[in-house]
Amino acid sequence: MLTMDARKLAEDARAIFTAAGATQENAEIVTHSLVDANLTGHDSHGVIRVPFYAQEIRDGRLDPRASPRVTRETGSTAVMDGAATFGQVASRMAADLAIAKAREAGLGSVVAMNCHHTGRIGEWVERIAAAGMIGMSTTAGGGGPYHVAPFGGAKGGLGTNPIAWAMPRARGRPPILLDYATSSVAQGKLQVARAKGEPVPPGTILDAEGRPTTDVEDFFAGGLMLPFAGHKGYALGVVVQLLSVGLSGGEVSGDDQRASCLSVLAIDPNAFRPREEFTDYVETTAQRLKSVPPAPGFSEVLLPGEPEARSRERRSRDGIPLPERTWEAIQTTAREFGVVLSAG
Amino acid sequence: MLTMDARKLAEDARAIFTAAGATQENAEIVTHSLVDANLTGHDSHGVIRVPFYAQEIRDGRLDPRASPRVTRETGSTAVMDGAATFGQVASRMAADLAIAKAREAGLGSVVAMNCHHTGRIGEWVERIAAAGMIGMSTTAGGGGPYHVAPFGGAKGGLGTNPIAWAMPRARGRPPILLDYATSSVAQGKLQVARAKGEPVPPGTILDAEGRPTTDVEDFFAGGLMLPFAGHKGYALGVVVQLLSVGLSGGEVSGDDQRASCLSVLAIDPNAFRPREEFTDYVETTAQRLKSVPPAPGFSEVLLPGEPEARSRERRSRDGIPLPERTWEAIQTTAREFGVVLSAG
Repeated sequence: MLTMDARKLAEDARAIFTAAGATQENAEIVTHSLVDANLTGHDSHGVIRVPFYAQEIRDGRLDPRASPRVTRETGSTAVMDGAATFGQVASRMAADLAIAKAREAGLGSVVAMNCHHTGRIGEWVERIAAAGMIGMSTTAGGGGPYHVAPFGGAKGGLGTNPIAWAMPRARGRPPILLDYATSSVAQGKLQVARAKGEPVPPGTILDAEGRPTTDVEDFFAGGLMLPFAGHKGYALGVVVQLLSVGLSGGEVSGDDQRASCLSVLAIDPNAFRPREEFTDYVETTAQRLKSVPPAPGFSEVLLPGEPEARSRERRSRDGIPLPERTWEAIQTTAREFGVVLSAG
Repeated sequence: MLTMDARKLAEDARAIFTAAGATQENAEIVTHSLVDANLTGHDSHGVIRVPFYAQEIRDGRLDPRASPRVTRETGSTAVMDGAATFGQVASRMAADLAIAKAREAGLGSVVAMNCHHTGRIGEWVERIAAAGMIGMSTTAGGGGPYHVAPFGGAKGGLGTNPIAWAMPRARGRPPILLDYATSSVAQGKLQVARAKGEPVPPGTILDAEGRPTTDVEDFFAGGLMLPFAGHKGYALGVVVQLLSVGLSGGEVSGDDQRASCLSVLAIDPNAFRPREEFTDYVETTAQRLKSVPPAPGFSEVLLPGEPEARSRERRSRDGIPLPERTWEAIQTTAREFGVVLSAG
């Protein structure tokens, strides 16, 4: 395992994307998102994606020069075309537009189609919370592949369909943050289990025949992920699908990796009561939860989002751990675009 | 087990509430909600509550004559005081107001404090879906008791904090419906396990010391419920708490059964694309999920909400099964108010 400085890593990623044809602005945004995902501990949405995005650019499936645009708009809502550029570019624009609308109308909802890969959606709700508002975001594919079985099903019907929520806190504290897949695990965790040759917990995956298994190779041989928590995660996954794809109009037939769709919602507490009263209640709740004594086997009760905030603090200071294989793949990509790297 | 006709059961409940002092309108609304909860199969929110509500009226904690009112309003948002009358009255009004606002503004969010017991929140999102819109609803207590432990905690910090979503479908089909507690189970299920003397599955409850147990008596001896799905259900429970209580301003100190708070959100698909295109995509998704072959041990894949829709159809036709003990308690309450019952 290597340890990389976040700023140098960002410089390198930005240089690669720029060499691959990205505009300065697009390269800046996607790089910030990838490195920030690493900082929060969500490595599967971090710089590990650089070689994949570069390949997608070369294959003409990701347009690094494009600018997302608004195609339909009301005082509190908007629909965007992500223009098949980095999904992080459309997503950040959607979040900022939702914030601006919520500031005027109390509520703002923006959806986007054709977003390629939307990245760590926790970032968009953190951005909304940083503006003092409540944020929700969802993302789902406008087409397949569908690697997640519906509850009780033996074939795929949904993607990993994540959902995120954030709640602003007083005095610059990191927000209350929920950000998870509606599948049993994120797909990245299965790759980790495969690399280690370890079994996965029961209830995580099915084999290609729809039978429960703990052998992660069964997933990669045409198997499926289960929804988290049975019918509860399944139902939430369906909601995410319809909010993201149904409202944005981003449905496509067949499989298409450019077809990610996104929804973001911003709710301004000020429309309901003075914001400080809302954040005071957030603190009351946070203190009640933090004062609960830990159960046997736990050392403390964490607020939702505390693991991410602690990781960000630690990795900003001590560096980002990166598997050698990930760094080698980034180096290979850099060479292909004639970029000399500064980190490592 | 008795079998009761839904209409006669409703007549009886209405007569009891009217005799207890409820206005005609309030009695009508709460009765409809309770019987509808039974029809959908959610018996813990059904007529089993009649004796409890009657007792609350007698004790002066539920005002059967009051009318909820709007205390703050913008074009897309409103705050209501539930006036400590039947929570179903405030909740229905909140849903209707959210629908009206979403019709104008694309989005409508209404929160309410001081709602006593808000009932089956699936009803409010079904109501929004029946108006052709996407609905979300949450409810939580403005004070304790807190019977649900945070993830990793040995004492209570949250209530059962349910969340509901509904998605409209074309041609009058029942909506896609999600409606569940963020605790491992609804509290009513623990009462059922207790009545049967059965253990509960691992991961459901803790004893008074915060230790895992499957003996349901440990819960009733000061124990706790766990959140569903560990940190995932916990995080969602915190979000429900802050949306419901934080936005409505309904926080109270200590324990107070009148202090339920509610949030409802209506999203008009028409603000994003023509509604028929949205519901067409809902049907595409529904068909994809329904066509998935069942996994071993299952007979078919159900859509979220199909169990409720099938129960409603069956029980509307064949009657509502009611434990003798529940009916006896309703009869006792009726006698206390001098009401002669028609069902049974």
